[in-house]
Amino acid sequence: MKIYLGCIPCFARQAVEAAEMATNDHKIREKIVREALKVASVIPFDKTPPHMGKEIHRIIRKTVGNNIDPYKSLKDKYNKKAMKIYPEMKEIVKKSKNPLETAVRITIAGNIIDFGITTTDSIIHLMDIVNETLNRPFAINHFASFEKDLQKAKKILYLADNAGEIVFDRILIEEIPDYKERITLAVKGHPIINDATLEDAKQTGLTQLVRVIENGSDAPGTILEECSEDFRKEVKSADLLISKGQGNYETLSETSYNVYFLLKAKCPVIAGDLGVNVGDIVIKKGNYNG
Amino acid sequence: MKIYLGCIPCFARQAVEAAEMATNDHKIREKIVREALKVASVIPFDKTPPHMGKEIHRIIRKTVGNNIDPYKSLKDKYNKKAMKIYPEMKEIVKKSKNPLETAVRITIAGNIIDFGITTTDSIIHLMDIVNETLNRPFAINHFASFEKDLQKAKKILYLADNAGEIVFDRILIEEIPDYKERITLAVKGHPIINDATLEDAKQTGLTQLVRVIENGSDAPGTILEECSEDFRKEVKSADLLISKGQGNYETLSETSYNVYFLLKAKCPVIAGDLGVNVGDIVIKKGNYNG
Repeated sequence: MKIYLGCIPCFARQAVEAAEMATNDHKIREKIVREALKVASVIPFDKTPPHMGKEIHRIIRKTVGNNIDPYKSLKDKYNKKAMKIYPEMKEIVKKSKNPLETAVRITIAGNIIDFGITTTDSIIHLMDIVNETLNRPFAINHFASFEKDLQKAKKILYLADNAGEIVFDRILIEEIPDYKERITLAVKGHPIINDATLEDAKQTGLTQLVRVIENGSDAPGTILEECSEDFRKEVKSADLLISKGQGNYETLSETSYNVYFLLKAKCPVIAGDLGVNVGDIVIKKGNYNG
Repeated sequence: MKIYLGCIPCFARQAVEAAEMATNDHKIREKIVREALKVASVIPFDKTPPHMGKEIHRIIRKTVGNNIDPYKSLKDKYNKKAMKIYPEMKEIVKKSKNPLETAVRITIAGNIIDFGITTTDSIIHLMDIVNETLNRPFAINHFASFEKDLQKAKKILYLADNAGEIVFDRILIEEIPDYKERITLAVKGHPIINDATLEDAKQTGLTQLVRVIENGSDAPGTILEECSEDFRKEVKSADLLISKGQGNYETLSETSYNVYFLLKAKCPVIAGDLGVNVGDIVIKKGNYNG
């Protein structure tokens, strides 16, 4: 998905929020935001939105310091919040008529944890979101095809989205037969907004569950040409990609891999691109024709 | 009120919305938004937010044409909408225990018509807003002082805010004794967002009610140094200014005229500056110590 004009105000909001989290120094905040506006004023619109997210955080690292991770404590907090409701979510899956579909729904519910989109730290009641998502119709529903492809696939690459959210991903992963052998989980190579990194996968027990790899990139999505060569090889050799969240959709929607996009449409631009309403849940097969 | 960091995303939104209203040509929209981002990246933070609104519309005129008024049809629509409920509002004032205070409340309710703040054209039920505002406590309440100053003032300058909203201003003006002799209504010198101009004052009958003057400026507020000399003289010679809405507050809050700010706090930045909550209604005396 390319950058739409409607993405621009969101870029500005992301820059302000990230600057405010990165430093208390008002002069430095101002410098970060001004620099981000300059980059936004010339960014090619044939790039994807996560290009801009990446640029904002590069500006922050350049200005505040290389080791800065403004979202670290929020990420820890949401990992813990999600771990707390993990047993309850497992129970729901166990009792449901179609555990795989229920796990897909719960995984999508976890997509609400997204500080690239919502105002920071405004979500408290994760279980309310889970329960709402269990009963919401899919706006795009390629679940049947997903289930079939899951049975066939030998190598599944699961592209994680955010910290906290990966606990919800764990719920789906554990419902996929032979997941230990078949699934590799990919996380970001460097901290970017609240995207899940190797550290988050460790914190939430996912490294003990499946093989976890880093994609080598600091973009809040999967910009393949910026990922490591090793990661690109993993993508090419996978039979099936599970792409979680908006950032991965934005960066992979026009590729032709055998990919399923699992997400909640949280902004009007993405909802428009998908032809659904804001708030809708989606499991959508990509352009693969193999 | 100076520009806060939190104003920046709003500037970007205003630029996108105005560009979308000004032209259907995507390339030109993009050009407008890029140019606006460039200006925002260097705008001095000791300016007031309406400086940026003004810049955006200057960019639009420069790019699309001098006579462009993207908001013209929306303004006409809201003038008509407001005129339609004018009799009902008059009836409420007539029946109320304190007609002047009720008129102040109704005038503030009209401040909801603001396309600089809310997403364009999302407000339908103006009477609902009026009724809600009649029963809402003032977050800052200098009404008693306002009433006293009104009795004394010989020359009152009423700074209008938006089209449509001026019909609500009419409700207050008509409750002020000897308004025909004492009140001058000031509108913007050129179209800017949905701010009221002479054309709107004519459409809504205000030119037949009181003397109406233009401020000579194209900013969505009252940037005195950019207004005409004639207008500045009017400001100086007035005993009392009635300042309506956010834009006028933003540009006059730090002056020391005998001014009362009547507004609904619609954005977190202004609410923060005033020390109130978003949605609160305010009648606030300025810094005057005469």
